[in-house]
Amino acid sequence: MSTLRISVETPASGYTVLVGNGEFSRLGSHCQEAGMAGRCAIITDSTVGPLYAEAAGQSLRAAGYDVVTLTVPAGEASKSLARVEELCGAMTRAGIDRKGWVLALGGGVVGDLAGFVAAIHYRGIPFVQVPTTIVSQVDSSVGGKTGVNLVEGKNLVGAFHQPSLVVIDPQCLQTLESRILREGFGEVIKHAVIRDAAMLGELRELADRIPHTDPADGSRLLAADVLDELAGLVARNIRIKAEIVGADPYETLDLRALLNFGHTVGHAIEAAVPYGKLLHGECVALGMVQALEMSVARAGLPAEERDRVVDVIRAFGLPLACRPEDGLQGEAGVELVKSRLATDKKFEAGALRFVLTRQLGSAYVDKSVTGEEAEAAIRRALGC
Amino acid sequence: MSTLRISVETPASGYTVLVGNGEFSRLGSHCQEAGMAGRCAIITDSTVGPLYAEAAGQSLRAAGYDVVTLTVPAGEASKSLARVEELCGAMTRAGIDRKGWVLALGGGVVGDLAGFVAAIHYRGIPFVQVPTTIVSQVDSSVGGKTGVNLVEGKNLVGAFHQPSLVVIDPQCLQTLESRILREGFGEVIKHAVIRDAAMLGELRELADRIPHTDPADGSRLLAADVLDELAGLVARNIRIKAEIVGADPYETLDLRALLNFGHTVGHAIEAAVPYGKLLHGECVALGMVQALEMSVARAGLPAEERDRVVDVIRAFGLPLACRPEDGLQGEAGVELVKSRLATDKKFEAGALRFVLTRQLGSAYVDKSVTGEEAEAAIRRALGC
Repeated sequence: MSTLRISVETPASGYTVLVGNGEFSRLGSHCQEAGMAGRCAIITDSTVGPLYAEAAGQSLRAAGYDVVTLTVPAGEASKSLARVEELCGAMTRAGIDRKGWVLALGGGVVGDLAGFVAAIHYRGIPFVQVPTTIVSQVDSSVGGKTGVNLVEGKNLVGAFHQPSLVVIDPQCLQTLESRILREGFGEVIKHAVIRDAAMLGELRELADRIPHTDPADGSRLLAADVLDELAGLVARNIRIKAEIVGADPYETLDLRALLNFGHTVGHAIEAAVPYGKLLHGECVALGMVQALEMSVARAGLPAEERDRVVDVIRAFGLPLACRPEDGLQGEAGVELVKSRLATDKKFEAGALRFVLTRQLGSAYVDKSVTGEEAEAAIRRALGC
Repeated sequence: MSTLRISVETPASGYTVLVGNGEFSRLGSHCQEAGMAGRCAIITDSTVGPLYAEAAGQSLRAAGYDVVTLTVPAGEASKSLARVEELCGAMTRAGIDRKGWVLALGGGVVGDLAGFVAAIHYRGIPFVQVPTTIVSQVDSSVGGKTGVNLVEGKNLVGAFHQPSLVVIDPQCLQTLESRILREGFGEVIKHAVIRDAAMLGELRELADRIPHTDPADGSRLLAADVLDELAGLVARNIRIKAEIVGADPYETLDLRALLNFGHTVGHAIEAAVPYGKLLHGECVALGMVQALEMSVARAGLPAEERDRVVDVIRAFGLPLACRPEDGLQGEAGVELVKSRLATDKKFEAGALRFVLTRQLGSAYVDKSVTGEEAEAAIRRALGC
């Protein structure tokens, strides 16, 4: 299968997303073609680094780049200003000045963190995204949103900073834990609901070919035909996201907000749940189930359409409601999630913003959802 | 004297700088006219806050704004990512979301810090600058540079984020300590050297009317005619800076770099000196003396032109070389300043960047200064 190229337009200019199996091994020449110059900081994490950082560094050095690799602990906790400070300090000491650049090698956490570091280091240097998870490949690597968390909530500080290039190699998915692989389909299902209902059927079929067990050391988790299908699917999702962010780069219209389908309740749960209990895509799945429920109640979505999406969510092994072991039991859990909803960015100028759908393949922003309805949705999502 | 209005062009659009005695009392209506909407966080420091925050808040509330005031300790140490995290957290808890805005009330530290907070809070919200020192009025409030320091150096993380409005009231200078007032003329003298040689004569005359002693409680430090003259002088300097940054907003040409006259050695000393020993304008003065010296040696600047500038620097009570009590004595001091020079942003892609002048009123970037010449300049500046 040949390389797929997607052009993403940005206010200033634009950049290319390359998708293809084997592209990772050509990283250095892709960066050259994109005009990257100067010393490079590869920012990666303790999971992805040991698997891919050496190969990435070799490819870049072969293309003539000076490279330093900086590794942060895997996990959401690394999305902090303290970690940003460490990284910018280490880059400065390594001589990466305003003429240098950053390569983000990893999943969404690394992309958000490294992108933000690039956005503010010496007031902004270029960066390249090499996303290694489904979530980051179809979602967070495109659109220019970067940032870190505060105690008060996720992604509350950040910057719009567009990458200069995105290189996506589905082969990197082979080393993912099965749970991480499957959570990524949360955002894919979301794209299907808001823009591409036809994709739902293909996803239902693909779900049965995605393993639910972890890869053994060195074993291939994904068959060659699945990898090819994934390349096409990733490209299709990036086109959806690129079209939306191209039309609404700074989220000033209600268009980009459609990408928050499932994220109102999903983000609140994600912010409330004890660390590591639920993944982002799993929280999005929980939120989507509730957004579909509300869509049936408020927007006339046929119940069988809701069931069709719920079936796909279930087929990927994603949760439909919290389990007791997720740690959000009882009234204390409800209150905690409600408080997170109140500080989330979806709560804008005092009004709740839910994304709902009247018909699969389309969505709209509904600002009239009441606090009672939101609380009922939270109770259903928490299974109480 | 009527209000002076200066339009500053930016890549996206532009903003207005208002200069005039008494404008501070009309802050609320100025913000309304500039289109500011939503809740406002006044960010100020422990020196300026007690003097001006209540009046600023009253003016804003009278114009219909919800206001919360956040006060950081006065001093350069507040330009840290830890302080950014505190401020963004406090703003979130106060309900200042993506529809809110920031008013920076204070000198350069507050402007840089609050501007950076505005640049990254919820990925960027608008801000208004109300600079209360000469340095911030003529220099840092215009141009969109915001940021904080790392252990590794000053202003190493930041963002280009343009204010929506700048309101400058020279009456705010009345409460400044004499030393803070006088240091501000470092940047003014710099503007004269690189763009406006005629200003030097006026500055020499003004210097004798600027007090060298601190204001007693409640006393007027500056006479009405001096305040009027300062309003005109501030506006004249903002026009110089606005013209330069308008032509080179992201410092991608060598044009904006001219504003670094005196800053190569100056910043290195500022980064090396024990905290609080020397002010920014004093370090710029030290750096300018050396840049003038190099200009005579390398660029054919007549020695009497150098002497003319040095005389103005001296007349404002600014230092020509470090004193023993500044704490940078001997070889250890030289080595420390040299190491700071190496991590400063003026040291670009391995080459030193000095700004020199062949003739007062003009300047150019010289990248051929050797390490030996730089070291000799550092030794002269340190008085050893």
